[in-house]
Amino acid sequence: MTTTELINQIRKKKSFLCIGLDVDLNKIPQHLLKEEDPIFAFNKAIIDATHHLCVAYKPNTAFYEAYGLKGWKALEKTIKYLNEKYPEIFTIADAKRGDIGNTSTMYAQAFFEDLAFDSVTVAPYMGKDSVEPFLAFKNKHTILLALTSNAGAFDFQTKTVEGKELYKQVLDTSKTWENAENLMYVVGATKAEYLAEIRNIIPDSFLLVPGVGAQGGNLQDVCKYGMSENVGLLINSSRGIIYASSGEDFAAAAASKAEALQKEMAVELG
Amino acid sequence: MTTTELINQIRKKKSFLCIGLDVDLNKIPQHLLKEEDPIFAFNKAIIDATHHLCVAYKPNTAFYEAYGLKGWKALEKTIKYLNEKYPEIFTIADAKRGDIGNTSTMYAQAFFEDLAFDSVTVAPYMGKDSVEPFLAFKNKHTILLALTSNAGAFDFQTKTVEGKELYKQVLDTSKTWENAENLMYVVGATKAEYLAEIRNIIPDSFLLVPGVGAQGGNLQDVCKYGMSENVGLLINSSRGIIYASSGEDFAAAAASKAEALQKEMAVELG
Repeated sequence: MTTTELINQIRKKKSFLCIGLDVDLNKIPQHLLKEEDPIFAFNKAIIDATHHLCVAYKPNTAFYEAYGLKGWKALEKTIKYLNEKYPEIFTIADAKRGDIGNTSTMYAQAFFEDLAFDSVTVAPYMGKDSVEPFLAFKNKHTILLALTSNAGAFDFQTKTVEGKELYKQVLDTSKTWENAENLMYVVGATKAEYLAEIRNIIPDSFLLVPGVGAQGGNLQDVCKYGMSENVGLLINSSRGIIYASSGEDFAAAAASKAEALQKEMAVELG
Repeated sequence: MTTTELINQIRKKKSFLCIGLDVDLNKIPQHLLKEEDPIFAFNKAIIDATHHLCVAYKPNTAFYEAYGLKGWKALEKTIKYLNEKYPEIFTIADAKRGDIGNTSTMYAQAFFEDLAFDSVTVAPYMGKDSVEPFLAFKNKHTILLALTSNAGAFDFQTKTVEGKELYKQVLDTSKTWENAENLMYVVGATKAEYLAEIRNIIPDSFLLVPGVGAQGGNLQDVCKYGMSENVGLLINSSRGIIYASSGEDFAAAAASKAEALQKEMAVELG
């Protein structure tokens, strides 16, 4: 998917909501456990109920890998369902991968070709030759971890490296990489006040923003400091939406939570 | 596996060799492609031919994920085969994972419980609460990326952060985390001269050292600067061993390359 197609979808739906499909069998409605593939059954119901309210879905691969083969199979079915039934939706494999060059190419093939996601999250620690193999894929997007929403972000990301914080070094340096136009960045909503400075470095790039809701971030602050001319924001909510109810009404409850966020976003889009 | 068991195995086999099982279907002997599971057939033959010469195997998960479900299945069969037939072998899932707390727990379950690896490689960028969930598993080992063997290591890892290089900050900081005794570290052989300083910070920890051979690192230099009282080294070779021959003699050729390294290691162990 091109960035323009993503922007058009945002304008049309008046939403920049991304829904995190982090499926934990201990948390989904228990009546789904008798399904042949409870993970996919849960995802399918959530997607069918919310696809008109959001522009992106983001399965975190950890939740699928934790269930071994059946988890990987559920991930395959989920992305296939999205690509076939809702091709306008932007898909994110939240995998936080990264390895030396030829190995990163294998990961890129896994997520961009085999699974056919539009984007994948990547960790920056190993530098340029660990990220460029992802950037080489046309109309695919590499979402680089910059400033994450967890407490551990302060261990290294905010430490000063040669005059500026490490996450700013990551932003600055990554702009010089080949096909840098395919980069987006993860910036946690819990650190909204950092967004103004981030926008000075990367005025137009899309930011994937976790941490609104469950982790305490505020939508209005994120928009105030982080919105660009072409919106430039994908705000993710996972637990707050998908686990809104543990009863048989779980999909309707998820849609209701998603709609509340979408309405807030419509106001921000003006 | 406990660290003591690993050290005993090293002393007994006079080897601290780790063999990287990075299986690329374009590189394995073509007669294997007619097997039902070519990836596992290749791994099984390599393992049977080399298990007495090495102490660890390290599949890089990228190579398996690139083949989707059948790749993940081959990974499961490989680790199951190792755990059943050669339980004395130390197993490493080279996955370079890392995510926010509860999500890292899912990854830890995937690799330590579902797949039953002894260890997993983890990226440090997201800090303490992304790594501690892995450290919580008893007799399992978390191998943290410190100084990698690729060119991109110089983008961020060697940059100065508050008076010392980022990779040294990672070493220093990680020592303070809960269950830090379960930490090992990735340090590339291509930067052997850094090992002396690294040993000042972590005198006893095991180091997983890629980059000997194909990437130009030197075994003697790594031992000179990096060996600790209890050896403290696992030196990895992947392509140099597993692709020693593309003919029907591939397993014997791999054993021959592994034996050459094992003999050099026996000399270093004295």
